[in-house]
Amino acid sequence: MCGQCVIDHVRQSMMDRRRLMFGAAAAAAGLGALSRPAPASAQAPTPGAPSGSFTGVADLTHTLSDTFPTFGGAPGFSAEQLYERARDGYNLFILTTDEHTGTHVDAPLHFSADGQSVDEIPAASLVAPLVIVDIAAKAADDPDAMVTPDDLAAWMSAHGEMPDGCCVAMHSGWADKVTGDGFRNADEGGTMHFPGFHPEAAAMLMEDTGAVAIAVDTLSLDHGASADFATHNLWLPSGRYGIECVAGLGALPAAGATLVVGAPKHKGGSGGPARVFALTA
Amino acid sequence: MCGQCVIDHVRQSMMDRRRLMFGAAAAAAGLGALSRPAPASAQAPTPGAPSGSFTGVADLTHTLSDTFPTFGGAPGFSAEQLYERARDGYNLFILTTDEHTGTHVDAPLHFSADGQSVDEIPAASLVAPLVIVDIAAKAADDPDAMVTPDDLAAWMSAHGEMPDGCCVAMHSGWADKVTGDGFRNADEGGTMHFPGFHPEAAAMLMEDTGAVAIAVDTLSLDHGASADFATHNLWLPSGRYGIECVAGLGALPAAGATLVVGAPKHKGGSGGPARVFALTA
Repeated sequence: MCGQCVIDHVRQSMMDRRRLMFGAAAAAAGLGALSRPAPASAQAPTPGAPSGSFTGVADLTHTLSDTFPTFGGAPGFSAEQLYERARDGYNLFILTTDEHTGTHVDAPLHFSADGQSVDEIPAASLVAPLVIVDIAAKAADDPDAMVTPDDLAAWMSAHGEMPDGCCVAMHSGWADKVTGDGFRNADEGGTMHFPGFHPEAAAMLMEDTGAVAIAVDTLSLDHGASADFATHNLWLPSGRYGIECVAGLGALPAAGATLVVGAPKHKGGSGGPARVFALTA
Repeated sequence: MCGQCVIDHVRQSMMDRRRLMFGAAAAAAGLGALSRPAPASAQAPTPGAPSGSFTGVADLTHTLSDTFPTFGGAPGFSAEQLYERARDGYNLFILTTDEHTGTHVDAPLHFSADGQSVDEIPAASLVAPLVIVDIAAKAADDPDAMVTPDDLAAWMSAHGEMPDGCCVAMHSGWADKVTGDGFRNADEGGTMHFPGFHPEAAAMLMEDTGAVAIAVDTLSLDHGASADFATHNLWLPSGRYGIECVAGLGALPAAGATLVVGAPKHKGGSGGPARVFALTA
């Protein structure tokens, strides 16, 4: 499909989707309406066996510590040394972790009553073609910038259709801010300002692609100033998962790498710190 | 190299190594001598960029819960629900974890004063050709069975030299016992009986191969009845890492898969629960 054809298709698809999902009134009411559950037609894709080849690996994981910034502001991780090599023969720590700390996975259960818990996400969904949507330029000017349907259409125009089973990652440049206050970027009223996925972009991925995950280099799938977790509420209950606080996206190509998401596998979890790699072609 | 040549080479190498590492007296004194630090000549290999291709993925990770068996016997994991979807809008748990619980990594720091912590293991070492040494038949007869130099030589005889940067995994059949008392298999005196790596096998891998890791489907790199953690004390201080409680090895080929070790990345950790995948050819 030619570049202009893709954009035209996406625009038409967006209009169709708005009518289908929300009706004219809901569409006119704005984004708040998007926080309703996803329609029954938006089932999570079930990817086949992943395949590919690679000649290198990139680590997309921040180092976790008790100073790592969190969405809520309070520390989300601590480690207490229980055994010590010199005294006991070996070192061993007890870890206490908020599931949604560090580079981590949001399982569908995070925003649903009975969605997949983190241990239930299929392994085939955790090895995923990596699509990187670069909004770093606009995010540098506007910390409230979001990945929009137009950004997705531009990616498709340059690289073709998104592969089935893919993870679509937002590169906003925010990973470089992780050691400073600019990562949360809270204003005087406490509202945070960092980029995320516009709910209409999430809706477009659900309707028009076989994406199984979205990823962000910020603290939330929604942009920081969101008042209603609209993207979380649309994406996760549909059976798809998310990854937050991803590192290193700026060094990778927009297409062609394979993401391997080392999600934790504790029973019934809503997510958790993950080791995330990209296998590079 | 022909099969008999490999075996002869390994036997000669073992004799050379014993002389070099421990001297005649230490060799005569038995395995206890092996718990001394590895010699300076046994540096950890630094693998190049991993490469390969795959057409499927296998999950080698047990599901973690508060009933998962542990080396010490007491529960090693718990989860407390802090937020609840119906009440708070989302589900979120606080996790408390002994680093050495579930399918998990032993970093060099686990058995050394200043070895690599889990966040310092290079990503290139966490994507590794997977060598599987199957001792399930002898382990079915003898729970104190170990991977020996002869087992390694037999693998080499069948499959050739072990690839640089590989992880050598013991398949003892123990993963199938994980839900019962047979996994720890403690006798009346409290001594556990399950398979592990013989320290001489670890020494052989250090001297003769570019292996960066060993993995077991049991609770310890050492066999359960070990009184001195001889294999831990040899392998980990050399800068190589381990993986314990691996699942699913029995369904994989002895050679040809690629292991991806989703090790946790908390600063200064001695190890931790990991998501482990095999990418299959």
